[in-house]
Amino acid sequence: AAIREAMPSFDVETVPTHDANGRVLRQSVVAERDQPPFDRVMMDGIAISHADFAGGKRAFPLQARQDAGDAALSLEAGHAIEIMTGASLPSSANCIIPVERISVNDNVATLEDGYTCEANQFIHPCGSDHTEGSELLSPGTVVSPMDIAVINSAGLSNISVTKLPKIRVISTGNELVPAGQPIEDHQIRLSNGPAIVAMLQRHGYFDCEHDHIVDDKALLEERVGVHLNEADVLVLSGGVSMGKADYLPEVLQALGVNVVFHKVQQKPGFPMWFGVGPNGQPVFALPGNPVSTLTCCRQYVITALHQASLRRELPPTFAALAKGVTFKPDKTNFLPVKLANSVGGQVLALPVFTNTSGDFTALSGTDGYVELAQTESEFPIDSPVPLTRW
Amino acid sequence: AAIREAMPSFDVETVPTHDANGRVLRQSVVAERDQPPFDRVMMDGIAISHADFAGGKRAFPLQARQDAGDAALSLEAGHAIEIMTGASLPSSANCIIPVERISVNDNVATLEDGYTCEANQFIHPCGSDHTEGSELLSPGTVVSPMDIAVINSAGLSNISVTKLPKIRVISTGNELVPAGQPIEDHQIRLSNGPAIVAMLQRHGYFDCEHDHIVDDKALLEERVGVHLNEADVLVLSGGVSMGKADYLPEVLQALGVNVVFHKVQQKPGFPMWFGVGPNGQPVFALPGNPVSTLTCCRQYVITALHQASLRRELPPTFAALAKGVTFKPDKTNFLPVKLANSVGGQVLALPVFTNTSGDFTALSGTDGYVELAQTESEFPIDSPVPLTRW
Repeated sequence: AAIREAMPSFDVETVPTHDANGRVLRQSVVAERDQPPFDRVMMDGIAISHADFAGGKRAFPLQARQDAGDAALSLEAGHAIEIMTGASLPSSANCIIPVERISVNDNVATLEDGYTCEANQFIHPCGSDHTEGSELLSPGTVVSPMDIAVINSAGLSNISVTKLPKIRVISTGNELVPAGQPIEDHQIRLSNGPAIVAMLQRHGYFDCEHDHIVDDKALLEERVGVHLNEADVLVLSGGVSMGKADYLPEVLQALGVNVVFHKVQQKPGFPMWFGVGPNGQPVFALPGNPVSTLTCCRQYVITALHQASLRRELPPTFAALAKGVTFKPDKTNFLPVKLANSVGGQVLALPVFTNTSGDFTALSGTDGYVELAQTESEFPIDSPVPLTRW
Repeated sequence: AAIREAMPSFDVETVPTHDANGRVLRQSVVAERDQPPFDRVMMDGIAISHADFAGGKRAFPLQARQDAGDAALSLEAGHAIEIMTGASLPSSANCIIPVERISVNDNVATLEDGYTCEANQFIHPCGSDHTEGSELLSPGTVVSPMDIAVINSAGLSNISVTKLPKIRVISTGNELVPAGQPIEDHQIRLSNGPAIVAMLQRHGYFDCEHDHIVDDKALLEERVGVHLNEADVLVLSGGVSMGKADYLPEVLQALGVNVVFHKVQQKPGFPMWFGVGPNGQPVFALPGNPVSTLTCCRQYVITALHQASLRRELPPTFAALAKGVTFKPDKTNFLPVKLANSVGGQVLALPVFTNTSGDFTALSGTDGYVELAQTESEFPIDSPVPLTRW
């Protein structure tokens, strides 16, 4: 709730429709025309007047051919027009006979023996899907591939969406060495920052840059200051525990970032820090343990970015525990799970216990995490629990 | 099954690890070192020898400070070393006391009254997550943000993944006018091709180009021929029904594309066509109705691309129908659904009936489709049915 209250709303921008896939709509999309925009033929075949059929006629001289995309012809009494799927219904015609039901000889189409037809068959009436001006998509929609079809069909080659925030991800710690560089026994690989960037991108936040800063107070102040000026959102990993080299809270304060909270009664991620910069920039400082970092990134950062993007909120989802769990009831537990799906459609969450919050390899192959309430300690098998997918 | 048999395997390429997010692994990732690579300190505080505590000692002169990333020091008997989370355990130390449990005066750390500790507490033992050389990720894994952490931690700055296939999406039809251009009453907006591209991209297939070709046989042959030479996969929309202007099957045959099947006992998408080009390129020709196009794209094209990418197959998922459905039992029905999730964790699928297979706006806001078997006609409420998310 504290993060929610502190989050800004990101800006709007106009992009070409083909770049709007996965973005958050900031405008309504209304129908350009009735849909279908004409009485639309739904089968390849012939167009006739049903009155002719009702009057006993079974053989129809072919007057002309009309393809999809041709302007509608005018049907002469007693005749048929060869017609293709997607074509506009010829005037005076009100019945389509599929090509499979006719034979054509000497330019005369004859119906299959005993074939009967109804007036208006295989005609998709003008405006029956929706009428001109009706709202097809509303602000807050995350544009799906289907919505790309809808936006194009509304004639819009450009569309207003939420501008992607500039996000800067900062890893701190002397012990971190990037992959590909020589490493000493007491050092560890830099992995949190790249994983945070990957998670942000997976959720559609592509404007991310990563920086690694060692635990030097002056250097931290300088570099974090630059990022703070350039970015809309800062995500830091490490440096917020009570260690002597955990300078971040101090450095952030000196840079005018006001702390909103430090420490949350949760496991993993107890030392999490959150503040707001001088221009209202949200600053998330996530604990440096990999399991903590990734869980807090999904639980707080991604959720907050969705909110600030004015994305429509989805209802919460639930899973049933596939195994009983016992916890100390002092903290909210975010427990990684692998999901299975029963033949009856139930989502089953199998807890994956990480060895420690440093054991990130156990997270690989998990689908998300469940939230186990602070107030309980026993969660029997089949308990329904809130589920977040990574 | 016919598509599965005809699909090639896409090539391998090496990419920087930070570009591997969402890609399919084509190599194993093994642990570079034991993890943790040293006895890793899990709390900020002091490191002592538990024997000193057991011998009654409660006040420890501070010998030195050791941060994360420093080489491990050697603890002197009767002393403590100030220690930070992530540091390598000093030799001769075997117990970490959290900083919250001590007070420091005159360079001596004194334990909280009555505080007791265990040997080896807050130490994450070397190799306890995994040992050097153990397989952390196997080929076929779709790289998740967590896997990005794993790959970096294995020291790999580059990684082998499936090369993205070059896909060409082709819309056919004279009646199609792109958004932003003037439109006549009998014409409709070009929307299928852009929606197919968006769906392919949403599933990670980013190397897509779109072309629109009118129903002219010579032009189709020339342009489809160019795409066939340049692409690994062709996806066509429209032109495969029995209409007189549905030249595609003929054109494809002339270009050396052998038909594998034409028409499937399914709704929507009955006229679907599939063939294999002269170099083994899969060619999917999807019916031009928007609902048919998008359903066939998800059901056949995406599934086949995943297979050819050597992506590990996921188990099928199921949902429970939130409303009974009756169908003619002659065809397999793919029915669009909106999903809800019960508090008990059940996935409920609410059918969305499209007005016709041209009524694509009804697809907007759906989450996927369920498959209703050809052999049945009655599907009562709560029936478990196979579910595919878009």
